[in-house]
Amino acid sequence: MNTTESNPVITSEDLLMHWQGHRGLTRRLIEAFPEKEFFTFNIGGMRTCSALMQELIAIAVPGLRQIAMSSTEELKEHLNYTSKAEFLARWDEDTKEINRLWALIPDEKFQERIKTFGQYEGTIWSSIFYFVDNEIHHRAQAYVYLRALGIEPPHFWER
Amino acid sequence: MNTTESNPVITSEDLLMHWQGHRGLTRRLIEAFPEKEFFTFNIGGMRTCSALMQELIAIAVPGLRQIAMSSTEELKEHLNYTSKAEFLARWDEDTKEINRLWALIPDEKFQERIKTFGQYEGTIWSSIFYFVDNEIHHRAQAYVYLRALGIEPPHFWER
Repeated sequence: MNTTESNPVITSEDLLMHWQGHRGLTRRLIEAFPEKEFFTFNIGGMRTCSALMQELIAIAVPGLRQIAMSSTEELKEHLNYTSKAEFLARWDEDTKEINRLWALIPDEKFQERIKTFGQYEGTIWSSIFYFVDNEIHHRAQAYVYLRALGIEPPHFWER
Repeated sequence: MNTTESNPVITSEDLLMHWQGHRGLTRRLIEAFPEKEFFTFNIGGMRTCSALMQELIAIAVPGLRQIAMSSTEELKEHLNYTSKAEFLARWDEDTKEINRLWALIPDEKFQERIKTFGQYEGTIWSSIFYFVDNEIHHRAQAYVYLRALGIEPPHFWER
């Protein structure tokens, strides 16, 4: 681990705010989705919006917990939620838990390596970037679902 | 601008490699798209894949040039390309140009502020993150188009 006198590209706080900004947008996407179609609508054999959002929930806090605690957990995607309200309540709990866990990660840890969920190897920073990128990716797919349903999604650039 | 003795969350080189990894995936998405549908297919009144990729091209090099050169350019989205081959050739040129421009950005610049395309204000790092996030967002929409066309997209996790 090199300690260098430098100007950071981004700070730990920047990266947390960036992720939470994306999470706020994803929350608005969930809110915008019609209740029934959230659990039933898909395109081209893809997963429903609820299944995509389950994946994001399965990754965010459990992934960050492994980073903060240097622990290992299995990926568990199945939730028994049957309403958007349950997703939104969980989303808000997780937003707070992400802030709590983030504070436990010292700066020097971001360049260390980890194997999340017992199988995905990389640096800490690249693991966190993967969580965020994967959220952007699946949320964008839900944007297409909303457009196909004739509903205007929230603006991508509003965080 | 604070100069701190610290371990960076990510280095400038990390961020370039991260973006270029995403660009490689977007290139494979363009390759996977059928020629005719690239210019004609859409869902829910959204733009075609060629229009989405035009936007990415309009942002990447011109945006980074403004960052590297501290210059201002207008956003010009219109390209007269009529084949995927022209998009792919431009993509490859831009990949090299991004590497060239990136080398001109000193580390201390990432926390400075800029107004790209004369209108989008933020830090340099957040502007670059926006370019990458916007690429992930629109590429994911093209993933749904491909699935709707019965074609399996490239794996999201392969960079």
